[in-house]
Amino acid sequence: MNAYPSKLVERAVEQLSTLPGIGRKTALRLALHLLSRPKLDTHTFAHALTEMRDGIIYCRQCHNISDTELCSICASPSRDTSTICVVQHVGDVLAIENTGQYRGVYHVLGGVISPIDGIGPEELLIDELIERVRSGTVKEVILALGTTMEGDTTNFFLYRRLQDFSIKVSVIARGIAIGDEIEYTDEVTLGRSILTRTDFDQSIRF
Amino acid sequence: MNAYPSKLVERAVEQLSTLPGIGRKTALRLALHLLSRPKLDTHTFAHALTEMRDGIIYCRQCHNISDTELCSICASPSRDTSTICVVQHVGDVLAIENTGQYRGVYHVLGGVISPIDGIGPEELLIDELIERVRSGTVKEVILALGTTMEGDTTNFFLYRRLQDFSIKVSVIARGIAIGDEIEYTDEVTLGRSILTRTDFDQSIRF
Repeated sequence: MNAYPSKLVERAVEQLSTLPGIGRKTALRLALHLLSRPKLDTHTFAHALTEMRDGIIYCRQCHNISDTELCSICASPSRDTSTICVVQHVGDVLAIENTGQYRGVYHVLGGVISPIDGIGPEELLIDELIERVRSGTVKEVILALGTTMEGDTTNFFLYRRLQDFSIKVSVIARGIAIGDEIEYTDEVTLGRSILTRTDFDQSIRF
Repeated sequence: MNAYPSKLVERAVEQLSTLPGIGRKTALRLALHLLSRPKLDTHTFAHALTEMRDGIIYCRQCHNISDTELCSICASPSRDTSTICVVQHVGDVLAIENTGQYRGVYHVLGGVISPIDGIGPEELLIDELIERVRSGTVKEVILALGTTMEGDTTNFFLYRRLQDFSIKVSVIARGIAIGDEIEYTDEVTLGRSILTRTDFDQSIRF
């Protein structure tokens, strides 16, 4: 793919292929698709993206994306504000919300501690979390970070910082996924699921 | 995916998911990716798309997309203008150009005859093709439409229209793909490749 018939198409393809998971071939297909639709469609499309990027704000409490200063989750009277679930990214909030299993509030860290990428605790919204816990009514902090080395490091760092308060600190369960076969589960996960086994009494409640 | 934290994100996701092959989950990932990049990036991105859509013109001769009134292929002195390759879409021109095997010019029909979709010969750029052939120097028309029923119908329609002129009308070879196993080729293709077998003399030249 080197000879595009038009510089304009080439530039559009270049831009489209900066998106994750979109190579130059797919980008070209998308560009040609946009060309086949009315001009107004592309304007609406482009406008929705710039409007989102310019208009988005982050909730002053949980740092989730929001249209208002306090996001709809933090502002909701039906959410349990005494439980904070700590996540890496905005996408994680959406993923947990979609389970419909959680009624507490969130705290978006903005990443995990990763010295190799130059991300230390001060780059993350950890002080803001501590401040929320200090200010009062929190009873439990649930750590829901990725199960990577960096996630574990961050979990441990947060755990140490949260020890100053008399609150419960928990971590989301790790084990074999629902529907998985024992035989095909990797040994680290399987080993972990044996070590952190749950009372059967408790497990049948769900 | 029903509760987006922001109307702006929701609208962006809606727009992104109008693209072919992009569902709501991927659209959300793309939207969050755009949010993670500087504002200027999204502006450049959106601008490249609207600029392409507004600025693109179609070559007055072959109807390929172009930045100029006559596209770079039609305008090139090194192309053989006595051979016209007829294709359905702009994307097909790019695909054939990428093979590096063709030095003639093109004619983009804009589709194929498909009564079921309400597309008759008058919806396509067939008269324009006939006009090009009538106006003079064309020696061969290569039909390179899709190998569907509609493609075959259109091929036959074009063939009939082109019989008024003393030119050669050819169709791109159909047969088993390079690298394919005979055993796993579908019977229609395999049957066709036997019926339209080529002289071995001719085939070893490539």
